[in-house]
Amino acid sequence: MNILIINGPNLNLLGRRQTDIYGTRNFETYLEELQQLYPQHRIEYFQSNCEGAIIDRIQADGYSVDAIILNAGAYTHTSIAIADAIRAISAPVIEVHISNINAREAYRRVSYIAEVCRGSIIGMGLDSYRLAVEAVAHINA
Amino acid sequence: MNILIINGPNLNLLGRRQTDIYGTRNFETYLEELQQLYPQHRIEYFQSNCEGAIIDRIQADGYSVDAIILNAGAYTHTSIAIADAIRAISAPVIEVHISNINAREAYRRVSYIAEVCRGSIIGMGLDSYRLAVEAVAHINA
Amino acid sequence: MNILIINGPNLNLLGRRQTDIYGTRNFETYLEELQQLYPQHRIEYFQSNCEGAIIDRIQADGYSVDAIILNAGAYTHTSIAIADAIRAISAPVIEVHISNINAREAYRRVSYIAEVCRGSIIGMGLDSYRLAVEAVAHINA
Amino acid sequence: MNILIINGPNLNLLGRRQTDIYGTRNFETYLEELQQLYPQHRIEYFQSNCEGAIIDRIQADGYSVDAIILNAGAYTHTSIAIADAIRAISAPVIEVHISNINAREAYRRVSYIAEVCRGSIIGMGLDSYRLAVEAVAHINA
Amino acid sequence: MNILIINGPNLNLLGRRQTDIYGTRNFETYLEELQQLYPQHRIEYFQSNCEGAIIDRIQADGYSVDAIILNAGAYTHTSIAIADAIRAISAPVIEVHISNINAREAYRRVSYIAEVCRGSIIGMGLDSYRLAVEAVAHINA
Amino acid sequence: MNILIINGPNLNLLGRRQTDIYGTRNFETYLEELQQLYPQHRIEYFQSNCEGAIIDRIQADGYSVDAIILNAGAYTHTSIAIADAIRAISAPVIEVHISNINAREAYRRVSYIAEVCRGSIIGMGLDSYRLAVEAVAHINA
Amino acid sequence: MNILIINGPNLNLLGRRQTDIYGTRNFETYLEELQQLYPQHRIEYFQSNCEGAIIDRIQADGYSVDAIILNAGAYTHTSIAIADAIRAISAPVIEVHISNINAREAYRRVSYIAEVCRGSIIGMGLDSYRLAVEAVAHINA
Amino acid sequence: MNILIINGPNLNLLGRRQTDIYGTRNFETYLEELQQLYPQHRIEYFQSNCEGAIIDRIQADGYSVDAIILNAGAYTHTSIAIADAIRAISAPVIEVHISNINAREAYRRVSYIAEVCRGSIIGMGLDSYRLAVEAVAHINA
Amino acid sequence: MNILIINGPNLNLLGRRQTDIYGTRNFETYLEELQQLYPQHRIEYFQSNCEGAIIDRIQADGYSVDAIILNAGAYTHTSIAIADAIRAISAPVIEVHISNINAREAYRRVSYIAEVCRGSIIGMGLDSYRLAVEAVAHINA
Amino acid sequence: MNILIINGPNLNLLGRRQTDIYGTRNFETYLEELQQLYPQHRIEYFQSNCEGAIIDRIQADGYSVDAIILNAGAYTHTSIAIADAIRAISAPVIEVHISNINAREAYRRVSYIAEVCRGSIIGMGLDSYRLAVEAVAHINA
Amino acid sequence: MNILIINGPNLNLLGRRQTDIYGTRNFETYLEELQQLYPQHRIEYFQSNCEGAIIDRIQADGYSVDAIILNAGAYTHTSIAIADAIRAISAPVIEVHISNINAREAYRRVSYIAEVCRGSIIGMGLDSYRLAVEAVAHINA
Amino acid sequence: MNILIINGPNLNLLGRRQTDIYGTRNFETYLEELQQLYPQHRIEYFQSNCEGAIIDRIQADGYSVDAIILNAGAYTHTSIAIADAIRAISAPVIEVHISNINAREAYRRVSYIAEVCRGSIIGMGLDSYRLAVEAVAHINA
Repeated sequence: MNILIINGPNLNLLGRRQTDIYGTRNFETYLEELQQLYPQHRIEYFQSNCEGAIIDRIQADGYSVDAIILNAGAYTHTSIAIADAIRAISAPVIEVHISNINAREAYRRVSYIAEVCRGSIIGMGLDSYRLAVEAVAHINA
Repeated sequence: MNILIINGPNLNLLGRRQTDIYGTRNFETYLEELQQLYPQHRIEYFQSNCEGAIIDRIQADGYSVDAIILNAGAYTHTSIAIADAIRAISAPVIEVHISNINAREAYRRVSYIAEVCRGSIIGMGLDSYRLAVEAVAHINA
Repeated sequence: MNILIINGPNLNLLGRRQTDIYGTRNFETYLEELQQLYPQHRIEYFQSNCEGAIIDRIQADGYSVDAIILNAGAYTHTSIAIADAIRAISAPVIEVHISNINAREAYRRVSYIAEVCRGSIIGMGLDSYRLAVEAVAHINA
Repeated sequence: MNILIINGPNLNLLGRRQTDIYGTRNFETYLEELQQLYPQHRIEYFQSNCEGAIIDRIQADGYSVDAIILNAGAYTHTSIAIADAIRAISAPVIEVHISNINAREAYRRVSYIAEVCRGSIIGMGLDSYRLAVEAVAHINA
Repeated sequence: MNILIINGPNLNLLGRRQTDIYGTRNFETYLEELQQLYPQHRIEYFQSNCEGAIIDRIQADGYSVDAIILNAGAYTHTSIAIADAIRAISAPVIEVHISNINAREAYRRVSYIAEVCRGSIIGMGLDSYRLAVEAVAHINA
Repeated sequence: MNILIINGPNLNLLGRRQTDIYGTRNFETYLEELQQLYPQHRIEYFQSNCEGAIIDRIQADGYSVDAIILNAGAYTHTSIAIADAIRAISAPVIEVHISNINAREAYRRVSYIAEVCRGSIIGMGLDSYRLAVEAVAHINA
Repeated sequence: MNILIINGPNLNLLGRRQTDIYGTRNFETYLEELQQLYPQHRIEYFQSNCEGAIIDRIQADGYSVDAIILNAGAYTHTSIAIADAIRAISAPVIEVHISNINAREAYRRVSYIAEVCRGSIIGMGLDSYRLAVEAVAHINA
Repeated sequence: MNILIINGPNLNLLGRRQTDIYGTRNFETYLEELQQLYPQHRIEYFQSNCEGAIIDRIQADGYSVDAIILNAGAYTHTSIAIADAIRAISAPVIEVHISNINAREAYRRVSYIAEVCRGSIIGMGLDSYRLAVEAVAHINA
Repeated sequence: MNILIINGPNLNLLGRRQTDIYGTRNFETYLEELQQLYPQHRIEYFQSNCEGAIIDRIQADGYSVDAIILNAGAYTHTSIAIADAIRAISAPVIEVHISNINAREAYRRVSYIAEVCRGSIIGMGLDSYRLAVEAVAHINA
Repeated sequence: MNILIINGPNLNLLGRRQTDIYGTRNFETYLEELQQLYPQHRIEYFQSNCEGAIIDRIQADGYSVDAIILNAGAYTHTSIAIADAIRAISAPVIEVHISNINAREAYRRVSYIAEVCRGSIIGMGLDSYRLAVEAVAHINA
Repeated sequence: MNILIINGPNLNLLGRRQTDIYGTRNFETYLEELQQLYPQHRIEYFQSNCEGAIIDRIQADGYSVDAIILNAGAYTHTSIAIADAIRAISAPVIEVHISNINAREAYRRVSYIAEVCRGSIIGMGLDSYRLAVEAVAHINA
Repeated sequence: MNILIINGPNLNLLGRRQTDIYGTRNFETYLEELQQLYPQHRIEYFQSNCEGAIIDRIQADGYSVDAIILNAGAYTHTSIAIADAIRAISAPVIEVHISNINAREAYRRVSYIAEVCRGSIIGMGLDSYRLAVEAVAHINA
């Protein structure tokens, strides 16, 4: 299966930024482990701090990959445009968050994206991404 | 590992109730499959339509099991008392929902429980429970 | 026709509690009159102060009776779980209130249950139950 | 008994308008049936699309009839002036709605009129009017 | 000076309706006293229960009279259309209320009309109209 | 094509009222120009300050004309009854506003009517009506 | 009659402050005119910028004067304590405002004081005080 | 005097749960001390995690005991049904909270119960119960 | 122990003002009884209608007394400044209210002060002060 | 005349995305037709998924073109920055929407952009752009 | 230049109160340093815990000094009366806060004063006052 | 010291855009003056209309410069992503606004950024930037 992982703003700082919330591993290292764990899947990765670039990528791959795993970061709470891109494509999207966004600022409880995704995996640390890969297999089963 | 799955109100009707949202399998059948899939874990199951009985069970096992997987159903949105029970115990709790609660009525977006759980797995159908079992292993790793 | 009347919390105090609002007759006496008035129907009665027990009973009879007449009392305004039980069953549910809940505290104007019932009869005193029995006949006509 | 039925805006279109919600019978036909069903009552009927005309009629008959059965239609949700007219008169008013207004747009849950009526009968189709006639007899009993 | 007094819905019931709030005198009797008290002014009077008729009259006289004294009754709280009519005309408008609308239902605190009037006289009983006549003289002085 | 233009409250004052917002031309003059510009259409015109009269006319012509162009004026923001009339009829309705209602008072941003119309043309001055006529042709094409 | 006029914060600047809103006359000059206009009344005057001092004075005179005319200025919108003082005393209080507070900032539409006063006179310039004196006579008549 | 202490959900965990907020003593030990401190009173104790069971007990004893001391725990903020039970009975109810609920989550500031109790004692630790016993004596004095 | 009782606005009228809510005893008489009841404590008393004076006194004694018992009256609901003074001092503060503020106007449910006090005693009449003295002893125990 | 059409996020998917809402034609094909329909105008086109790029283009051409026709897509509801760009330039901007945004999700009723545009054309399908071109001519006339 | 610094409630406790938020220096010491740093200015200082006294001082000096530097403390969030005083005077006012009020309680984000000041300097510790002095020079340049 | 000034959307138009609010000087000219005024600091400058590019730059320099001075323009009110970038870096950030955003549209009072900055300087025109440079020196002192 072809899976695209998209990470939104500030997630390129993983392992460096607020390590009490997000842990000390960077995403590239984790991604390699994940790819080795699921050799049967082709897992691609894209990160951008730009809302428009995330939309561009969702559009570009959203008709060809089997699923998108999306951690839209702060855009989760403010971007109707990303939600519209998800509505537009044919691939299912799994929403992922590393931290428990429901246990933080009130404005992180607002989500435009959750309602257009197949489902959400929240608060499991980096393991959220592995669980999303697990979920993808069953969605398409 | 000892894992307790708790299902809240109306989840005893799975396979019978609103099958367009919740699917046609009942939980007991699914549970057997899940137990066979993870023979290394001891997975117990409890269901009740009564808020108080759910609290009783969280208290009874919440200091001894390794994790609780909780689908509080409609009590997710109205029960501070269950949230307080989760706060009180030592075992981590994983919140689970079969349907994508963010794509339904507005009042299903209010959650007292999400903020006191370790994390949430939402909208993956019955597979949400399997993903939660997967998540538990890594939480305690 | 088989009709189940369910009364929620504090309605067991009818005739004793706040008689200026609810009148001085108790429900058991009234029920007998009602049964005599409609000998062609089998009218059963259940009362509980426990949200879970009400759900249990809605589930137990909700696939076999011809209609449920439900006065959920205060749970009208707070229970999504009872609303979900009504959604789950096949029997139509008629909502009943003895007093005019729209003329009392503001929080009695919030209802999770009204939207999943066939209709509502409000403020007619105990006669609300008789009107609901009248309504049931026509629903199924 | 003298009973006045008042229908508000767009209810003259019954049987023609949104038949999935309101059914296919027009009110005049239904009214005849109702009058035949209750020969002991004198049931008069008035319909207007104009808020002011409805107030005029409530004032004109509100001191002489035994009860008014009022389906204020959309004015239910916007007219404090009709509510004030009801407050002013001596006859009891029964609120009636054909569809379940609680299961439709959010703004149909706001009512200025319910709190000044004796009670409400909602969602029973045209049978709501018959139930209101039934209710009137007991109110004045 | 030419002064037009406009009374809105249900004010034709003065002296008959809710006499604990509005008193027992009807407006016609009061008007005569008022006219005798101010023989130097020409005081005309118009009452309607219809929002549209009130707008018609405001438009008809709003370019020729010296002032309008308006008790819009319940339309005070719901009518942007009357407010727009006041915005459109050249004569100053004095808002009048018999009862203290700020001491009643919360929805009587919302006013579309107050902000487009020259000022408001509230809660002085029928004497509010006399005070408005007094005010008019000074506005145009 | 048969087109009905309906103007709501205070629009009879066009050219006379608040000319900084609405311009100095009256509607009758403009209507003639419009009729000459589109000789292939039969364009009728109705104006009323009364909500009920507007509903009456929508009902009367709403099953026979090809389209209604509606500037409901202030009723745009307060009338669910007019919105219900539009829901009831078969002709498409185009909403029109002369001024940019989004750049004025906050309460002019609330609209019950926009959601039941085919579309809206706002802020183009009297030219909004011509654009609506242009739009009608394409809707029915 | 003994009448006490109390002016709240910043009203000592009348004639000097924001003359476009409040005019160019200072209150002392106006007061003299008022006293000459009503020689039959004893009109006392008190001004303070301090909420506590205003309460002190309301308490001191509130059991002995025939009426208080109160322009609480900005405290109108923020002081429950002044409202409580008015509740406590026996003399009727007339609320007065020079400018039309309903045509200014939204927060000037909130009033704790209006609901405990006998009535309100708003927006008539300094003439509001004279009208209040006129009103007092009739209240006690 | 006969006094009934009712503790709501999770209060059976006192001394074990969140000891930084609730302290380390369990309630049974404390109760004994309290009973010894007030040998002149008969102090009974009931705890349940179930809303319905709490209502049952309030009803059962609410007509015979001299007072109820109620710590409804989380149900304080969500249960209209318990509030209705308090409204129904004749014994006065004193609300008690161990922690300062006003210094915690915002949703703990909502209370359906406070307004139907005689009064509230909040934030004094377990001593809140002793103060409530002290209060009871004076209420009935 | 040194205890300072501070009473806020209008509490100097106790025994005179709204005796149905506050009773007929004045505070000075009550204070003497309280001092006699607790001869082991030195209980001082201060009352002011001025927010600033209350802050001055909290600051003056807040570092030296053992506790402050504060009935801030209406300032409870509006004064962040008093709350900040309580935050600043070292003595614990017990909030006291004579009436049940939760059973009165909605705006009396807002409190800036409760969250910075040790706890609250509400609705016990003047006995609230005695209970606070009782509470103080245990706080410092 | 020089006219610039700007399309915001996801509008590059027209004809491919949610065809039930947006139709099956792509914008490039439509644009050619539009240009042939109005050979007297020079119509340029720009599309971007990036908020910043849209602002860049508005700034670049906003001082030289005769008008901008802007369909900001989802940014309509979230972008104050685009609204500020419109405020900054000298060319008039016409807001355009293909679908009736008022008949969709509630959050599509919030607009930062409408209030700074000359006017809006909503819900006419792709024809909305032609109507905007028609409007432009008259704006500058 | 003549500059008046006004500090509101509890700022007299600087150096003593909540030193983690406000630091350990008292204002008098800091003021001397400030005066030495800007010998070319005459910097006066006033502090009061009383809203009315602050208004008195703003009025007294607001027509003669070159600028006022105002830290209204908690009154920032509750005092419309101080805002009105600032509106009334001719001297520009610079708002100053020692701590970052936007990073504290939600109610500290409400400000009546910011909108009537020239500008605000927030969160820079005591240095906020020096920056305000710097700002004043440029305002009047 | 190394200082980075970042300007957000539309601030590249300074001196050209809305000169009544923002003045007539462009930022480049001002920047040169600022650099000459503080030769001891290295002041770099970056402007972008793109939220993502601003985040990129905050991340790129946020671990190496001594401070960032950020005028996020309209993104102040809508960007959680920029706020998260500020949270992630080690350099302190000073928020700057040229105009008094609290005296403009209500939506400019919402800020996601203020709470994560060290402090804010608002409304001082271009001088706000100089004051921020002044502030930086003291932050790091």
